Amino acid sequence: MLIVGENISVTSTAIGDAIKNRDPEPIIKMAKEQKDAGANYVDVNIGPATKKGEELMQWVVSSIQGEVDVPLALDTKNTSAIEAGLEVHKGTAMINSVTGDRDKLEVLIPMAKKYNAKIVGIALSEKGVPPDVDSRIEIAMNIISAALEFELPLEDLYLDPIVLPVAVLQQQVFNCIEGLKAFKQMKDLMELPEDPKTIVGLSNVSQSSPQELKSLLNTTYLTILLSHGLDCAICDPLDEDLMNAVKTYDILTNRILYAHSYLDK
Amino acid sequence: MLIVGENISVTSTAIGDAIKNRDPEPIIKMAKEQKDAGANYVDVNIGPATKKGEELMQWVVSSIQGEVDVPLALDTKNTSAIEAGLEVHKGTAMINSVTGDRDKLEVLIPMAKKYNAKIVGIALSEKGVPPDVDSRIEIAMNIISAALEFELPLEDLYLDPIVLPVAVLQQQVFNCIEGLKAFKQMKDLMELPEDPKTIVGLSNVSQSSPQELKSLLNTTYLTILLSHGLDCAICDPLDEDLMNAVKTYDILTNRILYAHSYLDK
Repeated sequence: MLIVGENISVTSTAIGDAIKNRDPEPIIKMAKEQKDAGANYVDVNIGPATKKGEELMQWVVSSIQGEVDVPLALDTKNTSAIEAGLEVHKGTAMINSVTGDRDKLEVLIPMAKKYNAKIVGIALSEKGVPPDVDSRIEIAMNIISAALEFELPLEDLYLDPIVLPVAVLQQQVFNCIEGLKAFKQMKDLMELPEDPKTIVGLSNVSQSSPQELKSLLNTTYLTILLSHGLDCAICDPLDEDLMNAVKTYDILTNRILYAHSYLDK
Repeated sequence: MLIVGENISVTSTAIGDAIKNRDPEPIIKMAKEQKDAGANYVDVNIGPATKKGEELMQWVVSSIQGEVDVPLALDTKNTSAIEAGLEVHKGTAMINSVTGDRDKLEVLIPMAKKYNAKIVGIALSEKGVPPDVDSRIEIAMNIISAALEFELPLEDLYLDPIVLPVAVLQQQVFNCIEGLKAFKQMKDLMELPEDPKTIVGLSNVSQSSPQELKSLLNTTYLTILLSHGLDCAICDPLDEDLMNAVKTYDILTNRILYAHSYLDK
């Protein structure tokens, strides 16, 4: 399973200030900490970035990759900022994310192909959050069709069934599990050469829940989603309980060899 | 999901001594603690009980049910001791367990029917532990066939895909997950009127692992098995992390209504 570290985000005060002041140190430090904790990718959420987004994304990408050898997930609604980031990114980047809307798909899917980037296709549309499992499937099919149309390798597409907060929309948390299970059937449903990959923004599930419940909710939800074949999670790699559960999942499903010391690795 | 509390067992020194000395207090106390912690059943493992097993089982059953209103899982290889326990048991008992061997099936399945008891059918045979998933399925089919033959209601049969220690037999821990998934397909495979129920002896998975790993292994494994439809676990209800994960599983799959205080219930 791929882990995408979520902690570099304008929504954090420390990171938001560092971005505003063009102070690279807190950003580089957070990238390094996440990589050391087991993140395979580091997400870079620069917000809407409507002004000078291109320059900002290039500055963040170059600052991190100048010091830490880790690929990045470029996370903003500003598509020119995404492309600017891809221009200077070293290795295989990830675009986070494209919705099921045609105007977005026809810009971002060809962009992913051009830069050999992975891309997150999220089960959202301009109509908002899909109310049920079937609408998730419909959007996912649109995204897959665009990938086929623009000849993006399917292995570079990560479908996101959209995690919502259990404290606010409990039924939708269950729908997301069912959506994931359906996404893992798309190979048969759409006669694809391979199973599409799947991803979630995990921590959304515990948003609006009390602090003392967050890790338990995130960890249990991730274990459920892994059981149904999840390939990638955007989450907090500094949550030790969460990462220990991921290692334990790998042990119990025979993906890594058991040793009494497996948590230390 | 049903929880069967595992803590009344001759393998525990305190309980073993209480049984030997016919001292009911520690046994009653442990039954009450497990029920209060959320156990729906309390397992009573009196060991092989080759001598005076009938009298011993009746004494334990009556001692517990005289003080605590909880149904029991009667756990011994001595089949006459099981029947003696069923004679004095109040409510719906559980027989733990019958293997796939014909001589055991034709005694214990009719006994379960006679006493309206539930029964655990475990994927073991006189040949020992089944080496792979297919042998588990074969044994389960034998057990189901016996249930049909002796007209035991299928809802009273709990199939156990047999949990083994990850520290010793890692591949078998994965096989057990696959076995469970196959058992949940038996309705279609054998054209049954309903899905058979499933159960595991959870704590086996962490046997021979260091103490500090046990709860994490048990909790993660239970969450995986629940994700694949497990109906019942024989486990330690006094493990707070384990029970919190069960509650969180029920929240995330929309079985109980979310409240910030759901762990306190």
